[in-house]
Amino acid sequence: MAKKIIVIGSGAAGMTAASAAKERNPSAEVTVFTEDEDIAYSPCAIPWAIEGKSGWNEIVMHTPEYYRNDRGIEVFTKTRVESVDDAAKTVTAGGKTYSYDSLVIATGGKVFVPPIPGADLKNVFVVRTVRDGKNIQAALEGVSDVVIGGAGVIGLELAVSLRNMGKKVTVIEMMDQVIPRIADKDMAEIVRKHLEDKGIEFVMKAPVQSVNGDGKVSSVTAAGKEYPCGVMIFATGIRANLDIPKALGFDIGQLGTVIVSPTLQPYRRGRLVPGIYLAGDLVQCESAVMPGATSSQLGSSAVKQGLVAGRNAAGCPPSVFGPVASPWVSVIGDLQVAGTGLSEGLASWYGVSAAGGKAFGFTRARYYPGGKEMTVKVLADRSTRRLIGAQIVAGEEATGRIEWLTSAIVSGMTADSFLAYAENAYCPPTSMVRDPVFAAVEDLCRNL
Amino acid sequence: MAKKIIVIGSGAAGMTAASAAKERNPSAEVTVFTEDEDIAYSPCAIPWAIEGKSGWNEIVMHTPEYYRNDRGIEVFTKTRVESVDDAAKTVTAGGKTYSYDSLVIATGGKVFVPPIPGADLKNVFVVRTVRDGKNIQAALEGVSDVVIGGAGVIGLELAVSLRNMGKKVTVIEMMDQVIPRIADKDMAEIVRKHLEDKGIEFVMKAPVQSVNGDGKVSSVTAAGKEYPCGVMIFATGIRANLDIPKALGFDIGQLGTVIVSPTLQPYRRGRLVPGIYLAGDLVQCESAVMPGATSSQLGSSAVKQGLVAGRNAAGCPPSVFGPVASPWVSVIGDLQVAGTGLSEGLASWYGVSAAGGKAFGFTRARYYPGGKEMTVKVLADRSTRRLIGAQIVAGEEATGRIEWLTSAIVSGMTADSFLAYAENAYCPPTSMVRDPVFAAVEDLCRNL
Repeated sequence: MAKKIIVIGSGAAGMTAASAAKERNPSAEVTVFTEDEDIAYSPCAIPWAIEGKSGWNEIVMHTPEYYRNDRGIEVFTKTRVESVDDAAKTVTAGGKTYSYDSLVIATGGKVFVPPIPGADLKNVFVVRTVRDGKNIQAALEGVSDVVIGGAGVIGLELAVSLRNMGKKVTVIEMMDQVIPRIADKDMAEIVRKHLEDKGIEFVMKAPVQSVNGDGKVSSVTAAGKEYPCGVMIFATGIRANLDIPKALGFDIGQLGTVIVSPTLQPYRRGRLVPGIYLAGDLVQCESAVMPGATSSQLGSSAVKQGLVAGRNAAGCPPSVFGPVASPWVSVIGDLQVAGTGLSEGLASWYGVSAAGGKAFGFTRARYYPGGKEMTVKVLADRSTRRLIGAQIVAGEEATGRIEWLTSAIVSGMTADSFLAYAENAYCPPTSMVRDPVFAAVEDLCRNL
Repeated sequence: MAKKIIVIGSGAAGMTAASAAKERNPSAEVTVFTEDEDIAYSPCAIPWAIEGKSGWNEIVMHTPEYYRNDRGIEVFTKTRVESVDDAAKTVTAGGKTYSYDSLVIATGGKVFVPPIPGADLKNVFVVRTVRDGKNIQAALEGVSDVVIGGAGVIGLELAVSLRNMGKKVTVIEMMDQVIPRIADKDMAEIVRKHLEDKGIEFVMKAPVQSVNGDGKVSSVTAAGKEYPCGVMIFATGIRANLDIPKALGFDIGQLGTVIVSPTLQPYRRGRLVPGIYLAGDLVQCESAVMPGATSSQLGSSAVKQGLVAGRNAAGCPPSVFGPVASPWVSVIGDLQVAGTGLSEGLASWYGVSAAGGKAFGFTRARYYPGGKEMTVKVLADRSTRRLIGAQIVAGEEATGRIEWLTSAIVSGMTADSFLAYAENAYCPPTSMVRDPVFAAVEDLCRNL
């Protein structure tokens, strides 16, 4: 078993890896280095924390003192790792050099900010860390107009939070739909209309061209038009932090993330690197839906990878991280929006000709009070009739259903076998006697 | 294609079969005979309708006039089928004889009332039809004490409704736990305690010995003690209506229901009977979890069987009804209670040595307001490590999760493969980053 384990990074992947390693190998010395000042918090919670729904202290689950005293894990915050020498098995951080038997690299990602003029002005933010969130909250004071760059789920969650705070919110999106890439346009339209009804404005098919202002942002230009604002926030997607993997010469995949084995070990010129494990946003995953690489920059995937990386770093019998369908869910205004597997866009990336089926229903029996609308979309591969993806927009109860569909997709069910073999639980206050998911798959079969 | 299709029974199975047959074969003459006065209603809704949460007119989805005018289906209510002659292909009902090309038998079940003294007294009810519900509602007027016989899900849903109406409610149950057979005792205890906190009283391990009164019920005796009441309701489980299948000499299985082929055709002395299809409570199902017969007297199963029986009766290419794990859910007070596959009791019926794993968590991130408690239990076969059952008690969001677990069980996943390959969707307002389902399976692996 490893005697000294070092973890670089303190997000969901890193802290899970550290805890899992210490749990499986209590005699090991586990040390975490992180550039961040806060650790063990949920970046997904930041939109709600800005609005005040959850407190900053609440979303930070544990402090470095807790890890030291209760878990026997040493955490160095605000400490940059300057270099890793994997031949000598050492990490140099904060001017000191530490030796390791196993190393976990979980340095996550950072928000991609397009290289445009004015992106470095005051009151221009990204949303990733607790520090970002607190800075945004402070800057919003007295500001009436906010521009958000990017209509992905984080951008939209943030838009709702700021709207709830009474701000005039404009979302600028380069693509022709919200939640691009992972949601289909028809499903995304339901979400956009819901947000427009809440008074959020959208500027679509418009890359942000410049951020303008004298020292401090005063407007944003997109598609040739100027949008005044006192705060501008980029929610333009996450790029993996590849400084350390690149310095170590690890093989990088087509998606710009590190290629790993199922044990989460990297490769160097095609050879497995011993003693090093990766977890979180910087890892390339295998798709559970189609042969090929995929990204899975989700908190839930980071935790799963952290467990595998931590246990393997501890010297346990090899754990493996399986292929992913990457189910996701987001609460956007009064809607739960969820998806899994391939969207139409992702299917076409894999060269798959997809057919879709859609149904509208409710989350409870029609006659039971309080039911919410639910739209379900399912996709199948035209050539094999296999289910390859699904999306749900509903007032409640989307999460479990998207996990149900994930399981059906990953187990290789066709649309036909789903209709013959899948079952739904029923009770008037929680469901319709025949779930809208079935009606969507029936519609799919008509379109296949 | 069949020219004349007769359906006997107007519950979820019968009306779904009639509609499916007419939809697939619009030129066919489709006729439904039912002894009931109301059709196309949800018996599951009756506890909520008694309380007034849903109106009686709302829970009856459609009238006979609707079926005649909008769907071209003739429905004869309050009409008993006196005999079926499957050699001559005729049905005699209300004194007239009708010929058919295909026949669907969906006569459902009736509440089993134990053969005890006083069960026929006034104000003693079963709960099955809208008429039963309306009669109970009328009889409750001015009554303060109610006894319910049977602590299955319908008995408990009813107990909560009556308690919400301000009644003193006593539930008498023969077994040593509520929700016997399909829920494990430890999970059932959570539900019983919740109901006791609401002021509902339980008399356990006590069969109802007699119903007492002078013309009208005034008390119930159980375990030698007398419980005064103005209304007594039996919720003691459903027995299939086998009059017609028995008269036709169809083979009956070990569970007291009719053995059918995957096309839902019955057998007579081992030979498939052509032109007749069965659906609903009187059908024996195959288990999707263990080789062997099972019951699936659920509304969701009735609808699935109705679709298959109706399409086959219409003369479509054969549809099949697959094996079932029978996921179920019930809202009991403030709890959603759900299960799927085998309970410990059912596992032992199949001769399976089961191990269990359990976890406690929340329906949202810990720091997100409004999250509810969730307890998840999973069971696996000790010899194969395959998942065979699951139960959830939660304040919300149990339905989709039980469908997720159903899919995992039916696809043959082991506890280990679930941990390696299953995925959950995450967003602070709808879930924890690692769902309690995973923690339960981890606990299970420790116990296997």
